[in-house]
Amino acid sequence: MNRFWSRVVHDLHPYVPGEQPRVPDLVKLNTNESPYGPSPRATEAVRAEAADTLRLYPDPEASALRGALAAYHGVRPEQVFVGNGSDEVLAHTFVALLKQDRPLLFPDITYSFYPTYCRLFGIEAAPVPLDGGLRVRVADYARPAGAIIVPNPNAPTGIALPRTEIAALLAAHPDVPVVIDEAYVDFGAETAIPLIASHPNLLVVQTMSKSRALAGLRVGYAIGDAGLIEALTRVKDSFNSYPLGRPAQAGALASLQDEAYFQRNRALVMAERERMTGALTRLGFEVLPSSANFVFARHPSAAGAALAAALRERHVIVRHFAKPRIADYLRITVGRPEDTDRLLGALSEVLHAAGTHAA
Amino acid sequence: MNRFWSRVVHDLHPYVPGEQPRVPDLVKLNTNESPYGPSPRATEAVRAEAADTLRLYPDPEASALRGALAAYHGVRPEQVFVGNGSDEVLAHTFVALLKQDRPLLFPDITYSFYPTYCRLFGIEAAPVPLDGGLRVRVADYARPAGAIIVPNPNAPTGIALPRTEIAALLAAHPDVPVVIDEAYVDFGAETAIPLIASHPNLLVVQTMSKSRALAGLRVGYAIGDAGLIEALTRVKDSFNSYPLGRPAQAGALASLQDEAYFQRNRALVMAERERMTGALTRLGFEVLPSSANFVFARHPSAAGAALAAALRERHVIVRHFAKPRIADYLRITVGRPEDTDRLLGALSEVLHAAGTHAA
Repeated sequence: MNRFWSRVVHDLHPYVPGEQPRVPDLVKLNTNESPYGPSPRATEAVRAEAADTLRLYPDPEASALRGALAAYHGVRPEQVFVGNGSDEVLAHTFVALLKQDRPLLFPDITYSFYPTYCRLFGIEAAPVPLDGGLRVRVADYARPAGAIIVPNPNAPTGIALPRTEIAALLAAHPDVPVVIDEAYVDFGAETAIPLIASHPNLLVVQTMSKSRALAGLRVGYAIGDAGLIEALTRVKDSFNSYPLGRPAQAGALASLQDEAYFQRNRALVMAERERMTGALTRLGFEVLPSSANFVFARHPSAAGAALAAALRERHVIVRHFAKPRIADYLRITVGRPEDTDRLLGALSEVLHAAGTHAA
Repeated sequence: MNRFWSRVVHDLHPYVPGEQPRVPDLVKLNTNESPYGPSPRATEAVRAEAADTLRLYPDPEASALRGALAAYHGVRPEQVFVGNGSDEVLAHTFVALLKQDRPLLFPDITYSFYPTYCRLFGIEAAPVPLDGGLRVRVADYARPAGAIIVPNPNAPTGIALPRTEIAALLAAHPDVPVVIDEAYVDFGAETAIPLIASHPNLLVVQTMSKSRALAGLRVGYAIGDAGLIEALTRVKDSFNSYPLGRPAQAGALASLQDEAYFQRNRALVMAERERMTGALTRLGFEVLPSSANFVFARHPSAAGAALAAALRERHVIVRHFAKPRIADYLRITVGRPEDTDRLLGALSEVLHAAGTHAA
């Protein structure tokens, strides 16, 4: 609190990111990073930017990267917007498209940055409760709305909607912006990008942080009708002309050119997710069906906060949200097989000690 | 124009950055980049980040970089805020500190992003005219204000105020936030940082893009009272938790550790600026006294737009602003001696052709 703060600062509830601790021997399953490094082409491209040319500003329009994303996703370059991580893309989207005269709809349990953006930008939020199975039910969005944002798969549940359901949501709301946040789409969900051609109100947001293992570079993007992209560009050019540095633009571009790496990485993560899900189930956990690179799970006889704390003592870090309806769940990133083994070993130990082992 | 845009998008006047053309043999004196590459320590640090660790999010608090900046400038780490270029730092500053109930004062001729931020964030701007010599006159700021931002040196004029004048401005405005934008301070002006200890309302913004030759990495920062920094942090954590990627944090940190490079680079630029100023004067130009890495100059018998166009035909690009009071000026970045020679040769040719050579 400080007398020089603007009014809005007093009312903010800043987002709290997962921690980035520096502990040796840590099994870090708390921020949904890829367990495998990025494509060697991406690291090589970043390395090549470590040169005297760093003295020069980057391309403010990131034309090469946007062109490559357009080709990759089968759209035109003017349908692509890039930003400093999908969080920045989302922030500009809230200002440019989601701030309307009527409330913004999003799931009550979802990416917790959404209500934070609403406070920062003065947007009225109208959270729509997930159903009893913690699923997004499209029919529940049939209410007055200025705009809608839904992650697919949702976070932190990991549950995906099929594209037909997204199409139904769009059919019911042709007159307001609809944003599908696909941060985790590459791990088994269906992208809504094919619906863009017939829906000028649809914006799809994706990231290079997860399936392309470039969280450390900060590159996210949005794809949609050129009119929506122009709105984002106008906001971006009123905020920061050069959001992506040279290493970020080059690394992201190169990562798009290594399809084999991308397919292998996501296949490994999905296979390990299935193994982890099976093993957690055998330990007595209820695991929600995940289409992401994490699972959301609870144990009938162990509280989420206590489990997370006990795991932390064993140098395994997962994410726990002390919030209504999900306080008993853990969000666990899918790591390497050896990470899963460490997790399972620690959980067995904890549950045994508590006399709650189900197997 | 699009029916899905939020209201604010319609009213934006986005900033137009200097172009980044790809023309061989170009003398690029339009965006105030360093003519010399960054410290080899910085490029080496960026190179070292081109590794599997790019899969991991960066430190959201940039603790190591903030600690190094604090040590460098003699303040505490909680007095340092870092962002994705000083443009992002400024954007957050406008939201966190400069949006007040009374108007924001800044020079009428200054960094043209300021009025753009005001439109985006709904801030009432009250431009204060420069005096007849295109100087900031502190006495002219004695009027009702919610906050003040002044670049020192100012852009695009390059004219600096001595620290005693900044102190006078602060003495006259103890009750409102005062931001000094020191993007170009390292080229001969006095920083206001020593005034921070006695002024809890003073924020100083600097960048690594110019004197440290890291425009391609996007790193800027602010230094001020911990209470002001907390406001910026709250806005940042409501916008994007991870604004600086791993290469950016590492490169910026390493550049701080090469003081010899930094001193040599800025000395070279300042010496070349003096040579360029003398030569332009001999060609008949009126050159404003610059403390930046550019000069602002006009010729009594050649229009600014025509000169800029004629230079462009000769592959020399400078910046021209088609705005009242400064439409006859060119803003010319200080480059290498050979860049200056190309510039001077082209100008001689153009002025001779027009029969306006003064020498």
